[in-house]
Amino acid sequence: MTTAYEQFLIDNSERHLEEVCTALRFPSVSALPAHRADMRATAEWVAGKLRDIGVPEVELLDGGGHPLVFGRWIVDDEKPVAMVYGHYDVQPPDPLDLWVTGPFEPTVRDGFLYARGAADNKGNVVAVIQAVEALVRTSADGNPPINLSFFFEGEEEIGSPTVPTLVRKYHDRMACDVVISADGVMYGVDDPSLTLSTKGMLKGEIHVRTAASDLHSGLYGASTPNAVQVMAKMLATLHTAEGAVAVEGFYDSARQISEVEKIETAKVPLVEATFLSDIGATALWGEPGYTVLERLWLRPTIDLNGSWGGFQGSGSKTVTPCEAHAKFTCRLVAGQDPAEILWLIRAHVAKQSPAWATFTVTGGEGSCKAFEIDRNHPTLITAADVITEMYRKEPLRIRLGGTLPIAEVFHDELGADMVFFSWEQSDNNLHAPNESVRLTDLEIARRAWATLLTRLANEPLK
Amino acid sequence: MTTAYEQFLIDNSERHLEEVCTALRFPSVSALPAHRADMRATAEWVAGKLRDIGVPEVELLDGGGHPLVFGRWIVDDEKPVAMVYGHYDVQPPDPLDLWVTGPFEPTVRDGFLYARGAADNKGNVVAVIQAVEALVRTSADGNPPINLSFFFEGEEEIGSPTVPTLVRKYHDRMACDVVISADGVMYGVDDPSLTLSTKGMLKGEIHVRTAASDLHSGLYGASTPNAVQVMAKMLATLHTAEGAVAVEGFYDSARQISEVEKIETAKVPLVEATFLSDIGATALWGEPGYTVLERLWLRPTIDLNGSWGGFQGSGSKTVTPCEAHAKFTCRLVAGQDPAEILWLIRAHVAKQSPAWATFTVTGGEGSCKAFEIDRNHPTLITAADVITEMYRKEPLRIRLGGTLPIAEVFHDELGADMVFFSWEQSDNNLHAPNESVRLTDLEIARRAWATLLTRLANEPLK
Repeated sequence: MTTAYEQFLIDNSERHLEEVCTALRFPSVSALPAHRADMRATAEWVAGKLRDIGVPEVELLDGGGHPLVFGRWIVDDEKPVAMVYGHYDVQPPDPLDLWVTGPFEPTVRDGFLYARGAADNKGNVVAVIQAVEALVRTSADGNPPINLSFFFEGEEEIGSPTVPTLVRKYHDRMACDVVISADGVMYGVDDPSLTLSTKGMLKGEIHVRTAASDLHSGLYGASTPNAVQVMAKMLATLHTAEGAVAVEGFYDSARQISEVEKIETAKVPLVEATFLSDIGATALWGEPGYTVLERLWLRPTIDLNGSWGGFQGSGSKTVTPCEAHAKFTCRLVAGQDPAEILWLIRAHVAKQSPAWATFTVTGGEGSCKAFEIDRNHPTLITAADVITEMYRKEPLRIRLGGTLPIAEVFHDELGADMVFFSWEQSDNNLHAPNESVRLTDLEIARRAWATLLTRLANEPLK
Repeated sequence: MTTAYEQFLIDNSERHLEEVCTALRFPSVSALPAHRADMRATAEWVAGKLRDIGVPEVELLDGGGHPLVFGRWIVDDEKPVAMVYGHYDVQPPDPLDLWVTGPFEPTVRDGFLYARGAADNKGNVVAVIQAVEALVRTSADGNPPINLSFFFEGEEEIGSPTVPTLVRKYHDRMACDVVISADGVMYGVDDPSLTLSTKGMLKGEIHVRTAASDLHSGLYGASTPNAVQVMAKMLATLHTAEGAVAVEGFYDSARQISEVEKIETAKVPLVEATFLSDIGATALWGEPGYTVLERLWLRPTIDLNGSWGGFQGSGSKTVTPCEAHAKFTCRLVAGQDPAEILWLIRAHVAKQSPAWATFTVTGGEGSCKAFEIDRNHPTLITAADVITEMYRKEPLRIRLGGTLPIAEVFHDELGADMVFFSWEQSDNNLHAPNESVRLTDLEIARRAWATLLTRLANEPLK
């Protein structure tokens, strides 16, 4: 039987899609200062959407960065509160030339909506707002079934620098019993999932200098240090040939994988050949002794994100470079402290550095520890029930190789765990050119959120 | 006793300096398309100078690039010909803000004339023309003492792309017995020198691809290849920790350093501490078992000129890069064939590459072999005599770590060796801001050239 809110969602699906497109047309790139005004405009549009559906308290909170859209709809002071989390900012769209259609010109092709932020995360955020709209428009009293608050930040893609301060500052207003996140992943179109943990993060850079300026290679190359060469040697020491991290002590504090986790993870289907062909790679690489998913979800990494030094233009320049640089991020697991890992990497670089090269390791800002939720958390169980009914199969228990620093902040500041309830699929080109979202996933997301919020009215939130 | 031509040079020194300044006011930057008209104006000015002093055949040769100024003054068909080589183009002057006075506003300060091209090479080119002027104005018949041709190109600073074609095309007209170059270096103000060799050059790039596109490190970093990581591993295999090239076979065809060369090179003064402090480095690096000068002049290198891959912007981007790149140049010595060295590097990269990374090595364009002149070459011996008399000391026998591809072209096409006879000093800021030439070096250059050409009338040229 179709419920009233489901019928509302069906009747409004065209308008709802157009709303998603409107959200996606904002170039809300938080990393680029040029988009500062676009960020505010996007926040105001999101706030307007909340007001449109009837949220009584909506405000933009300013922590000195991009505005946080915060809303509250308390229908019964005696009852618990569920806070919906999401973000309206997106990754930079470059390289632009690889997009089939413009990153901020949402376009439907073959059942997918293409645009930067289509899945991560504006598409999912707007879907939640539309789900709440369906609930209140079809309710007897015009209220949602439970107390809700809305927390849509504009800094997720840059590590949420000002958000923790805002959470501390507005601690009372943000008090809640659980956070349900519209940002997160669904394991597969036919493999619904719930997420039990996210990895921690350490960001850093390695710099080296070998001389006061770039030198003419014909005059100096044969006899003086070369920064690009010594940086390559250094980066090569960070991993073994097989792919394990070779920094002494790196794995020591990482919590070992339990038997339950091994079994849970082994249930998750992964066809390695498909995994590889999806990304155009020909072999796996990484820490030996673990399965692909164990590595992605439960083992820490050092990832080199970029490196550069010397001449990069067209043609050639016979220069002996005097400096070189590399960017890295570590994905951490439970037990690991980002500050301690940075210390270990500094010690490694110092030990490996020849005396004639000046290496420095910077970083540590925007770090966070891994986040885990109890597999028996009440809201998680309710979410599992909703998904089981919709998909007619039990959701897989998965984990995120990615990081959501805010989960740790909510846990520490508000005492609220985060339940992920989001429809971002692995083939959605998240953070890459031609990001997309399935139109069917947007529909499922709207319906699932409406059902979950309805169900939570009669279940414990924590 | 002052000769007639020496007296002429003394009497005309003010006018000659003004002529050098006129040449330096042309912004003859061959690399920048915006200076195309300036290049032609400079060539016409140089051609005009040759006509002024009486050169009967002067023409601008067009190979599709910047014009080549070519002149011929054959006084006796039966006698050998010496061709004077030089170039009227200069390096770009940037960074402009580091110049004390404008790069194209020649200014005298403390015995130095400052301007782009003051030493490299317009100052030296004009000095030769003035030396010939002195000879013909003070000769009985108004002719130079020997058959001369003049070859002043406008593409030296961009690798002379159209010059080899012109040499092949005008092979007959350019026939000569020796080339004497107004471009080259003098080891020190009090350490006159003659140059016995220049190094060969191989230019190349290494590229690697590990996936179809950059990937989200949280989704893939722990389990898939990382292009920046594997490129670092690859670049690290090119050299041993001590600084020798580790490519199998790389040194095999390099001619070994002879005892004479070892002795000759050991005579050249080099204070390692000064060498290092000049460039702001703290230690030497390179192939073990050789002195600094042996490495710079007589041992081949692979120099990494630049590398890049992944994210380089400010902040961080949690990407697993799918491609990475590096540029290298090899400085080669006698015996080494650039094509064979490229083949060895390709073989090395193929051998070191893991199966899951697609490495390609491109390059080979603009390569050239090393150039050497016999230490007993007759013109070289005469040049040594002239320098010995002027400085009252025997010139050092030095070599260039740099490359002059044109020397190889003249050798192959015209059968003529190149003798370097130039006053560019290591403290002249060649290719850098505040390029200069000593006024005394310009005077010595004029007198030395007039003496050399006079002396060659009675000596074998080859």
